[in-house]
Amino acid sequence: MRTLLVIGIGAGDPEHLTLAAVTAMNRVDVFFTIDKGERKSDLAGLRAELLARHVTRPHRVVVAPDPPRDRAAEAYAEAVVDWQSRREQVYAEMIDTELGDGAVGGFLVWGDPALYDGTLRILDRIVARAPGEYEVVSIPGISSVQVLAARHRLILNRVGSPVLVTTGRRLAAEGMPSGVDDVVVMLDSGNAFADLPDTDLDLYWGAYLGTPDEVLRHGDLQAVKDDVRRVWAEHRARKGWIMDTYLLRRRTGT
Amino acid sequence: MRTLLVIGIGAGDPEHLTLAAVTAMNRVDVFFTIDKGERKSDLAGLRAELLARHVTRPHRVVVAPDPPRDRAAEAYAEAVVDWQSRREQVYAEMIDTELGDGAVGGFLVWGDPALYDGTLRILDRIVARAPGEYEVVSIPGISSVQVLAARHRLILNRVGSPVLVTTGRRLAAEGMPSGVDDVVVMLDSGNAFADLPDTDLDLYWGAYLGTPDEVLRHGDLQAVKDDVRRVWAEHRARKGWIMDTYLLRRRTGT
Repeated sequence: MRTLLVIGIGAGDPEHLTLAAVTAMNRVDVFFTIDKGERKSDLAGLRAELLARHVTRPHRVVVAPDPPRDRAAEAYAEAVVDWQSRREQVYAEMIDTELGDGAVGGFLVWGDPALYDGTLRILDRIVARAPGEYEVVSIPGISSVQVLAARHRLILNRVGSPVLVTTGRRLAAEGMPSGVDDVVVMLDSGNAFADLPDTDLDLYWGAYLGTPDEVLRHGDLQAVKDDVRRVWAEHRARKGWIMDTYLLRRRTGT
Repeated sequence: MRTLLVIGIGAGDPEHLTLAAVTAMNRVDVFFTIDKGERKSDLAGLRAELLARHVTRPHRVVVAPDPPRDRAAEAYAEAVVDWQSRREQVYAEMIDTELGDGAVGGFLVWGDPALYDGTLRILDRIVARAPGEYEVVSIPGISSVQVLAARHRLILNRVGSPVLVTTGRRLAAEGMPSGVDDVVVMLDSGNAFADLPDTDLDLYWGAYLGTPDEVLRHGDLQAVKDDVRRVWAEHRARKGWIMDTYLLRRRTGT
């Protein structure tokens, strides 16, 4: 029996680690990571810092290259699934090679493993091939959505009302969803908010949430969108990458 | 200037506290709590345990009675708003009486202050009456939604797809929302899932999430709903209260 711990480590602020995550990290014999290349080296550095600060027992870190992903594909879901199956091969080989019987493997996941992260999906498929050989444990982490809300001192829902969490790609394709006035957008690769025609929306935006580079903006969508787009482009050019999350809130008088 | 820290302490598992929450708790001079009566004394006990375990500096705990709330009201949102304005009075008086200039007040909030919790809304209104006198800081916490997902080893979204977080009351009134196949339900006071006619839904259910009393069930909604309803009623009768959260997932082949 081998144990695979999928540990949510928060969105970037090392203080957002939970006590359970620290305990879990100290059960791990081998940490498995995927090398996402230089562009995200800030994140890799932060992960190394978390290990150095909190892990007090001997452990190994195994790094595998990330399979290339076709981000331009028309069929987005299929491209993700295809990329995930190649990633599955990489994970399966790492685990098979590096994790002996009775050992504990760990995956440090940004944010929460339950929200727009594929690690659990990939491990499910690996585990399904070898029934009874693995136990998978998921440890929740603070997601960028929660950091966004905290930094803007927001409650995401209005009284008795729903909140939708969706992707930039969906928002770009379909516009503001009907029937819901509070929409959180993740994984937006290019300012989908800026193309919305709606004149009754407030935008609460954040990038690099929880890190020293954190940037926040908020206000009437139409009034602030050009500023946010400019800030987004400047930071992306300077750092080489950007991750942002935002809430679109329809003004309803509630 | 007085500081008000709204600290998310997780859904019930003391290990889900973040390092930031521990740090914040150790800045607090006065913890403000509302006495929700004997029925939730387990939760009050857990809160006391967190203070005893993690707070290393002198502090006071001030407890005020919870104003009564009309849960049978037809107009749910209005009833909540009315109850919140009475709660606002209670909070305002507590803060005014107990928190001196330069002092730090703390509110320990179950789950995440950003999701179906009214503390930030109440404090916003108090702060608005005395501009420049207060700083409000929100510290995110692990919500019951995240614990539910972790315990069932779920990713809440499907690839590229949205997730709706809504209330039991909405689900009971409107049924399964259209346009979204993954719906998280909170604040359900009476098994709204059981009245859904849908035959293509899976239910992932949990109560007392993160606590020693945690109960989990999952399966085809129509196949498991009677069992879940029975478990819900038994536990509620035995403990005097129950808090449950669940995911409804439409089987789509994705």
